[in-house]
Amino acid sequence: MPYRIITLGEIMLRLSTPGFERFINTRSYDVVYGGAEANVAVSLANWGQSAAHVTVFPTNEIGRAATNTLQFAGVDTSLIQFNEGRMGIYFVENGAMQRSSKIIYDRFDSAFSNLNPDDFDWEKIFEDADWFHWTGITPAVSQAAADLCLAAVKAASKLGVKISADINYRRNLWQYGKGPMDIMPELIEPSHLIIAGLTDFENCMGITDTDYLQACEKAKTMCPSLNYVSTTHRDSISASENDLNGVLWNGEAMLESKSYEMTHIVDRIGGGDAYMAGLIYGLLHFDDQNALDFAVAASVLKHSIPGDANFVSIDEVNQLVEGKNIGKLLR
Amino acid sequence: MPYRIITLGEIMLRLSTPGFERFINTRSYDVVYGGAEANVAVSLANWGQSAAHVTVFPTNEIGRAATNTLQFAGVDTSLIQFNEGRMGIYFVENGAMQRSSKIIYDRFDSAFSNLNPDDFDWEKIFEDADWFHWTGITPAVSQAAADLCLAAVKAASKLGVKISADINYRRNLWQYGKGPMDIMPELIEPSHLIIAGLTDFENCMGITDTDYLQACEKAKTMCPSLNYVSTTHRDSISASENDLNGVLWNGEAMLESKSYEMTHIVDRIGGGDAYMAGLIYGLLHFDDQNALDFAVAASVLKHSIPGDANFVSIDEVNQLVEGKNIGKLLR
Amino acid sequence: MPYRIITLGEIMLRLSTPGFERFINTRSYDVVYGGAEANVAVSLANWGQSAAHVTVFPTNEIGRAATNTLQFAGVDTSLIQFNEGRMGIYFVENGAMQRSSKIIYDRFDSAFSNLNPDDFDWEKIFEDADWFHWTGITPAVSQAAADLCLAAVKAASKLGVKISADINYRRNLWQYGKGPMDIMPELIEPSHLIIAGLTDFENCMGITDTDYLQACEKAKTMCPSLNYVSTTHRDSISASENDLNGVLWNGEAMLESKSYEMTHIVDRIGGGDAYMAGLIYGLLHFDDQNALDFAVAASVLKHSIPGDANFVSIDEVNQLVEGKNIGKLLR
Amino acid sequence: MPYRIITLGEIMLRLSTPGFERFINTRSYDVVYGGAEANVAVSLANWGQSAAHVTVFPTNEIGRAATNTLQFAGVDTSLIQFNEGRMGIYFVENGAMQRSSKIIYDRFDSAFSNLNPDDFDWEKIFEDADWFHWTGITPAVSQAAADLCLAAVKAASKLGVKISADINYRRNLWQYGKGPMDIMPELIEPSHLIIAGLTDFENCMGITDTDYLQACEKAKTMCPSLNYVSTTHRDSISASENDLNGVLWNGEAMLESKSYEMTHIVDRIGGGDAYMAGLIYGLLHFDDQNALDFAVAASVLKHSIPGDANFVSIDEVNQLVEGKNIGKLLR
Amino acid sequence: MPYRIITLGEIMLRLSTPGFERFINTRSYDVVYGGAEANVAVSLANWGQSAAHVTVFPTNEIGRAATNTLQFAGVDTSLIQFNEGRMGIYFVENGAMQRSSKIIYDRFDSAFSNLNPDDFDWEKIFEDADWFHWTGITPAVSQAAADLCLAAVKAASKLGVKISADINYRRNLWQYGKGPMDIMPELIEPSHLIIAGLTDFENCMGITDTDYLQACEKAKTMCPSLNYVSTTHRDSISASENDLNGVLWNGEAMLESKSYEMTHIVDRIGGGDAYMAGLIYGLLHFDDQNALDFAVAASVLKHSIPGDANFVSIDEVNQLVEGKNIGKLLR
Amino acid sequence: MPYRIITLGEIMLRLSTPGFERFINTRSYDVVYGGAEANVAVSLANWGQSAAHVTVFPTNEIGRAATNTLQFAGVDTSLIQFNEGRMGIYFVENGAMQRSSKIIYDRFDSAFSNLNPDDFDWEKIFEDADWFHWTGITPAVSQAAADLCLAAVKAASKLGVKISADINYRRNLWQYGKGPMDIMPELIEPSHLIIAGLTDFENCMGITDTDYLQACEKAKTMCPSLNYVSTTHRDSISASENDLNGVLWNGEAMLESKSYEMTHIVDRIGGGDAYMAGLIYGLLHFDDQNALDFAVAASVLKHSIPGDANFVSIDEVNQLVEGKNIGKLLR
Repeated sequence: MPYRIITLGEIMLRLSTPGFERFINTRSYDVVYGGAEANVAVSLANWGQSAAHVTVFPTNEIGRAATNTLQFAGVDTSLIQFNEGRMGIYFVENGAMQRSSKIIYDRFDSAFSNLNPDDFDWEKIFEDADWFHWTGITPAVSQAAADLCLAAVKAASKLGVKISADINYRRNLWQYGKGPMDIMPELIEPSHLIIAGLTDFENCMGITDTDYLQACEKAKTMCPSLNYVSTTHRDSISASENDLNGVLWNGEAMLESKSYEMTHIVDRIGGGDAYMAGLIYGLLHFDDQNALDFAVAASVLKHSIPGDANFVSIDEVNQLVEGKNIGKLLR
Repeated sequence: MPYRIITLGEIMLRLSTPGFERFINTRSYDVVYGGAEANVAVSLANWGQSAAHVTVFPTNEIGRAATNTLQFAGVDTSLIQFNEGRMGIYFVENGAMQRSSKIIYDRFDSAFSNLNPDDFDWEKIFEDADWFHWTGITPAVSQAAADLCLAAVKAASKLGVKISADINYRRNLWQYGKGPMDIMPELIEPSHLIIAGLTDFENCMGITDTDYLQACEKAKTMCPSLNYVSTTHRDSISASENDLNGVLWNGEAMLESKSYEMTHIVDRIGGGDAYMAGLIYGLLHFDDQNALDFAVAASVLKHSIPGDANFVSIDEVNQLVEGKNIGKLLR
Repeated sequence: MPYRIITLGEIMLRLSTPGFERFINTRSYDVVYGGAEANVAVSLANWGQSAAHVTVFPTNEIGRAATNTLQFAGVDTSLIQFNEGRMGIYFVENGAMQRSSKIIYDRFDSAFSNLNPDDFDWEKIFEDADWFHWTGITPAVSQAAADLCLAAVKAASKLGVKISADINYRRNLWQYGKGPMDIMPELIEPSHLIIAGLTDFENCMGITDTDYLQACEKAKTMCPSLNYVSTTHRDSISASENDLNGVLWNGEAMLESKSYEMTHIVDRIGGGDAYMAGLIYGLLHFDDQNALDFAVAASVLKHSIPGDANFVSIDEVNQLVEGKNIGKLLR
Repeated sequence: MPYRIITLGEIMLRLSTPGFERFINTRSYDVVYGGAEANVAVSLANWGQSAAHVTVFPTNEIGRAATNTLQFAGVDTSLIQFNEGRMGIYFVENGAMQRSSKIIYDRFDSAFSNLNPDDFDWEKIFEDADWFHWTGITPAVSQAAADLCLAAVKAASKLGVKISADINYRRNLWQYGKGPMDIMPELIEPSHLIIAGLTDFENCMGITDTDYLQACEKAKTMCPSLNYVSTTHRDSISASENDLNGVLWNGEAMLESKSYEMTHIVDRIGGGDAYMAGLIYGLLHFDDQNALDFAVAASVLKHSIPGDANFVSIDEVNQLVEGKNIGKLLR
Repeated sequence: MPYRIITLGEIMLRLSTPGFERFINTRSYDVVYGGAEANVAVSLANWGQSAAHVTVFPTNEIGRAATNTLQFAGVDTSLIQFNEGRMGIYFVENGAMQRSSKIIYDRFDSAFSNLNPDDFDWEKIFEDADWFHWTGITPAVSQAAADLCLAAVKAASKLGVKISADINYRRNLWQYGKGPMDIMPELIEPSHLIIAGLTDFENCMGITDTDYLQACEKAKTMCPSLNYVSTTHRDSISASENDLNGVLWNGEAMLESKSYEMTHIVDRIGGGDAYMAGLIYGLLHFDDQNALDFAVAASVLKHSIPGDANFVSIDEVNQLVEGKNIGKLLR
Repeated sequence: MPYRIITLGEIMLRLSTPGFERFINTRSYDVVYGGAEANVAVSLANWGQSAAHVTVFPTNEIGRAATNTLQFAGVDTSLIQFNEGRMGIYFVENGAMQRSSKIIYDRFDSAFSNLNPDDFDWEKIFEDADWFHWTGITPAVSQAAADLCLAAVKAASKLGVKISADINYRRNLWQYGKGPMDIMPELIEPSHLIIAGLTDFENCMGITDTDYLQACEKAKTMCPSLNYVSTTHRDSISASENDLNGVLWNGEAMLESKSYEMTHIVDRIGGGDAYMAGLIYGLLHFDDQNALDFAVAASVLKHSIPGDANFVSIDEVNQLVEGKNIGKLLR
């Protein structure tokens, strides 16, 4: 019996230059549709869970295409609203060697940012739901999006739906007159699981500790229902080579994963969302250490796949956790 | 000695589905940069004229790429301004058979629409200029763009620079609180040449005649400096087959071109701009009938070329006018 | 409230040479997944109906990819079974001018052909269903498939679900020891609507009339519940140019559609399935003549779209029926 | 038992812009290797004959690639010589509508043009040969090539090998100090079959008749062994639409083929070579009228195939001759 | 004077996702034709040997395309038979980083597996032959294929043609009722050279030694004519990074090659066949140590080339053996 | 106020196989236009300098395309001459792993090599110029090119324009009867900056020292105006992995840059030209050590970009020098 997970957030049209072409002289863009929260839904649907994504799309063929792409991955799109407006866009240039990857955002004034919070009946949306996931990007987009997020969090909390939040502080957003400290503490408070690094803690919760364990404990004090805090550590040797590991604090111990050397990275976008999805799946199915190991391995595999979506099977993730068949030719 | 022509207008990133793919399931978009006025500048530069385009681009790599693309075609980009903001986008789906081609615009709130008219010194811009070209799209975009257009038209008129205008009424624009009749008559008044159909006459000049010659004569009454009025007639048998001809009223006679059967159309976007450029080039170099014939032939050839830009030589256009070497294999 | 339509049939991996490349020296194949009945489901889902497809896929990534592709189009895939075996394949070479298009089938011994009829509970499948659609391809594949088809038809008939059948006689199939006259009459008998040409009538029903109206009337005699018989007439001037029209006999009159000249054909595969889908949609929503007109126009538009799936909107079909906006540039 | 046919001539690297891109802004070139005589060999090998091509390639990977490409088509490459030097190149831009197709040649100073005639032992080459084919391009390239061609023609004549020549006068060649009238008459004299139009007759044989039949008869007078003269008539409505037919004079009558309307032309280069190959094949296997009909149909089909090589089967050509299955979907 | 080498085995259509795309959402497949034994023939032909491949293809364009592809590489295809049936297919997904490469086989019931052993006259095939090569894949496919292989081995042995066998045990084949121990010992017995690892020894010869030297000696006892046993060791750090070396036992010593670090692997399929071809070529031309070094270097270079075929020159292999010009820019 | 830099040299059409395809079976070539000196101009224009390139192009569309491509990058093309003739070509095959990259040149008898030195008025060209850059490739091409180079050097020297020369000795050129020692010393003599390795010193200046510092001092003795000598050291681990650093002798000290490990190289062609451009830019704007560091970092980044042109910003180069943001995902 699959779990029912609801995710909320904006989806954008991602336009990536092919291969290692630069923006300046590319002749085409590859198309995918992605968003931090929807990427989580895609992973969870791909792993057999009942994942529904809540968002707003423009009522044109671009919005329709994004909807169908979610359906492709098995995500329930019946909760999506369609409004006038545009779809946010982000342009991606894939780095190589010492040259960094680049994103140009063109996301302002999107159909999502202009949503009407009253269009969503969260009590109905959360019927039969086990888990709700949101990220700090949503309340950073617009007051309407922040209001929607708060309504969702409150309803989830009231109905006993577990809540996860990827704090994901983005300095370039938050342009509608509010700062993260105005909005985020109330939103984070009822969380069961958060992903947060020290920068997130400082900017969104006002926690200025430089010791991660102490920061976690302080977060727990502020959010009594908080059972898990997690983050990943990424060491960028170059655009093509990163090391990655993760930690999970479960209120008792700071669990650590092994560290993976990722050479020959194909596409790192969505790597954090793959981790988030892995953690949700893992905590629903495994013990804490296995959940963490599953999440990191899922994230590693994402780096080998073009696009935002992490189309890897549970079996593939588990084999990487167990160190089996790595890089072989499987017949 | 080439003529110096100044064009003004917004340029957008054009994203076209490859081949006959539809928006709904395209995996990539082909990239060109286009705009009605810039397309005219590209044609004129390609034909050896000194063409400079005035516009505003965002200060990012997308704006840089558009600038370089104009330079590729030989257009002088030294008058372009860079501001914060986004670049307007239009998505194109190429039709076939009875299925229409489609454009989805995503152009609101662009760097161009938010331009500051004071950033442009038109008297300096028009030094050495022979001709100024604008279209009805610019004043339809925003008050600032309309103001800029008016400043340009006034300066050109004052300095004796000939003015051409492609009226090009677009119902979906004009969303900033003004209508075309509030703005266009004053802008059109000092024109030397306009391209206008009956719909344009009605919406932008209040001329409701259904006889084209009478409409031209009425326009002349309203715009004393108006020496030429022109338009094209397009008969769409299908997305793949159109018939095209043009007329040019020179105050004395209504000249007509031959009609071309365009089967196997490759890309019709920019066909009207190719006609406009042909007319400007023709009126600067040929007699009136030859100018018209050149314009229509240039437009026909554009339909055989992917993208907005009409990369055909003067020689190729002239050969089509003369009916030579049509569709041959030239070695 | 959408109608619930169940379709049954094999889906194959379609591998098409790009552009006009021939099999002999192609370096790549374009991938879509298609099947006569699934193509109908895709059209109906795309037009907002609740369409579920029943089939059997291999339990590998190819089967998974086909499933997700149906989901992309909004087709309900929850009724699909997965078994050991392979997916049938068909290779397509797109013709041009006088050179014909070619299909090479590689479909024998597929997971579908080896299905177990007992795996499907038709009474449950038809809960809430309004319509059931099958084609003559399914009983031609294997005894198991014929048995499954018969079970479906019987259940549909019993539950009052309307049945449509595209007779679609294929000489190259029927290799499992039975001929169409052994199997088809019983299957066709409870149909509400059939698509059949004179060859189909002769081979699958033993009706040898050469007058189409008389053949329809004879079919009605054999199948008392038969309310509609339809077929299309296609005149192949070349691979690039066909004329198409359709007729619909409703027991009272032989309705005729207008005839469309289809020049510049992009992809004719799936044209018949688009017609079938149009007829089902039309008969559920319009009067008989409008249903026929809708079906033919839907089929015409399909010829302009690459792949099996007919991603056109109801609005686009209706505009073609009304002769509006044909081949225009829609902004 | 297949016939043994020897062809002689230069092969060049053909670089074509993809789709309808122009030279000015193409980002890639499609690669094939082609030459008028080698194209004939490819057709004949494809139709089961034993065809060997004689040429000179540079001793680098480009020469090697061209060799392998001939082998792909079944052409015997054992007679090819490798020398220092470069491979000739021709750039192709595919026209559309009224826009002509264009070829830019870059063929001077090639390894072939600098060949050493003594490297070829024609008596050995013609062992078991039934037919020798050359064109007027070869003696136009260089003195060495003209010498080689003469040695070949003399040996063939001496050994009773039938000779065909495609006169194919090219004004832009003949730059080594000799004119066609210095060279061609001696080369043409022992021919069994020539393809020549009025321009060819005039420039290469000094026959100035404007009546084609009279020109043929005069050619026969000059070349006593000449049994067949043929040519095609092409009417270019546009780059996308041509009409094509052929005539064959067999000393008794001027046979005519039907005329084909070729709309939606894919690639017309190699159309004449396909005709030549069809004529050779036809005269070796059929009566004169059938040979002509076969040749024209083979040429028509070539126009539907990208590249120089005419990969169509005998069966496909015959079906077109018979008017069967034209433009159908063959399953 | 080149050596004459005969290879026997099935060739399949290989369909690979482009770049690092996964099966689940690929839109196209790249096409090559490959088979373990044919890959050896391609290498040997490419190195100037007279290599003929014996196989059975379906009598359709797919079979024809595979034939021509072999001809491209210079392989003699005159011994190939054409029968009814299908061509086996394998789908390939290229791994990256820790994600493994994957093959999905769809090879059952192919034209090859249904071959008739009586169609092949081995005494004629082996006229002038110096070497015969087969692999353990062939007898695993079907009884007919095993029978054909046995007939070939017996004829080769009788005629004094040297025999090499790549044991290549595949657990997923052997589905026709026989196991490898029923078939392989008799086939292997007359070999001059075998490639076998410990798993191959155990499954196909019943040799269970875990010491490779002892296993080789035991094999020699069972196969008196066996002069060479060889294998490679591959260490998979990831799909992108492998280490590779080889050993060759010549009855006297266990020779070892240097070990190569292969980072940035492009395509590892065919790496083993490149080694096999290198060993055959080496043993025919060099001393034993040089033969081994040549084989390993040839295999390493294969990993840098897309597709099954190892298009590297003898010179390139020798330069790698000598450590010259590695990874330079050669002008 | 930008500096004015004049560069002189041939530009060729570069045809590269896509991905890791080999020449032998590539089906397409990617197109860029490149030349050692023009690549320098492109970098400098991209960094905001006024760079004009002097060359000769053929008067066809290929020459036109090359011109426009320079314009794209902002290079002033007004000094380019157009003559009859061909454009030189170089074919590129990108290596991977231990397989080397390869270039096949086809550059003889180009329009550039046949230039007329009198067509260029160097005193006019150097008006307002600050710097002149040439390389040892130009005098190696033909006597005419050597004469032109000498005229340029003399004029620059006379007008006080600083001169840089990349000695760049190419053994395969110098085929017109002169050797480098006949020509180069006089050309190098008035240089301000040269790039030279020990091989260049020996072949072009007769300096046989094996100590680089001593060689620099000897060069200074021969060329009194020589203020800087520089070179790079490249260690090729494989085609995919190189280490790179640079040294700059400024008459007082031998400055050294850090060494960069370049794994995952995308395209190394143009790496030396990027270094040369970096050094010119650096010496015009920074102190000597910073100039060297800028040059090496610019060269490193070039290796991550497809094509000859180094489209990286000053900011990106400086960040690499400072070790900031290396390989990150920049939003």
